[in-house]
Amino acid sequence: MNFCSDCGQPVSLVIPPDDTRLRHVCGHCGIVHYQNPKMVVGSIPFWHAGDSVLLCRRAIEPRYGYWTLPAGFMENSETTEEAASRETMEEAGARIELQGLFSLLNVPHVHQVHLFYRARLLDLDYLAGTESLEVKLFREDDIPWDELAFPTVSQTLRLFFDDLKSHQSGRPFGVHTLDIHKRMRSDE
Amino acid sequence: MNFCSDCGQPVSLVIPPDDTRLRHVCGHCGIVHYQNPKMVVGSIPFWHAGDSVLLCRRAIEPRYGYWTLPAGFMENSETTEEAASRETMEEAGARIELQGLFSLLNVPHVHQVHLFYRARLLDLDYLAGTESLEVKLFREDDIPWDELAFPTVSQTLRLFFDDLKSHQSGRPFGVHTLDIHKRMRSDE
Repeated sequence: MNFCSDCGQPVSLVIPPDDTRLRHVCGHCGIVHYQNPKMVVGSIPFWHAGDSVLLCRRAIEPRYGYWTLPAGFMENSETTEEAASRETMEEAGARIELQGLFSLLNVPHVHQVHLFYRARLLDLDYLAGTESLEVKLFREDDIPWDELAFPTVSQTLRLFFDDLKSHQSGRPFGVHTLDIHKRMRSDE
Repeated sequence: MNFCSDCGQPVSLVIPPDDTRLRHVCGHCGIVHYQNPKMVVGSIPFWHAGDSVLLCRRAIEPRYGYWTLPAGFMENSETTEEAASRETMEEAGARIELQGLFSLLNVPHVHQVHLFYRARLLDLDYLAGTESLEVKLFREDDIPWDELAFPTVSQTLRLFFDDLKSHQSGRPFGVHTLDIHKRMRSDE
């Protein structure tokens, strides 16, 4: 940020009075421009008949060609559930029924919070959207663990298949919160 | 938003190619300035000895003089847990131990998502911060329901005391997700 989005004059990085952090403050109109984390919201589209999950192969950077759960930046004026359904339709052309929040993953070094909802895939008429090269169902044993796009996706998938086994012996699914720190990127 | 924060030239509201929504786009450098929901994160500081919860009376607008759970905008580079603890210290001077995510509330008409964590209040040495007029423990029956600042706070407190009763008969606390729509403001 170099200029004030309100008045177009230059901004400086200063700590405002009654604050403890550096902010972009306009030298002309005095407005403080706060910057806050963004939410990335998606789903875990589950096809019960095959115990499989729908993944998308990315047609865009970052991580072009790697596999991901359908997810993307939440938009203003929508709810997290609406964002999860919208992204699943946009990236995978898939109709889902949401079944509850499953994971909340902090990614503080990129100023993001990722949320994934469990979802029931309603039919097999899915179709790669413009941001996906292909869309495919994977059973746990077939998931391309070494070709997953993001640590939040691999962590969510591992937790999901763990919980799925417990669920099949009668336990409810959990809601998982965890933090992804920078060093974990190399774990992939 | 009137001007590009990168180059300082005027922006226009247009739908970029490959997009479906109006965005602020710079007429000079072409950058698209996305706007996304912000997260408000806080805690439910619980004092076990008295079955009571710590509330803050707001010393700032909006809702000056009304009671709230300690909460505020999440900052870049922190996790949701860090935000919950920081806000609880800043607004209530209270030391807590976080005990798990409790509620996620969408407030789409103000482009916000609110998160509250259950927390154990560690001692009674709390103290109103600069954004609070006073800080006080309330048992369920004493909560000033008509003087709560926000619907996300009243919903979270109602759910918390409901779950507390179930918890005392052995059931685990839930994780609750709900949407607050504009008309609900008048319910307060």
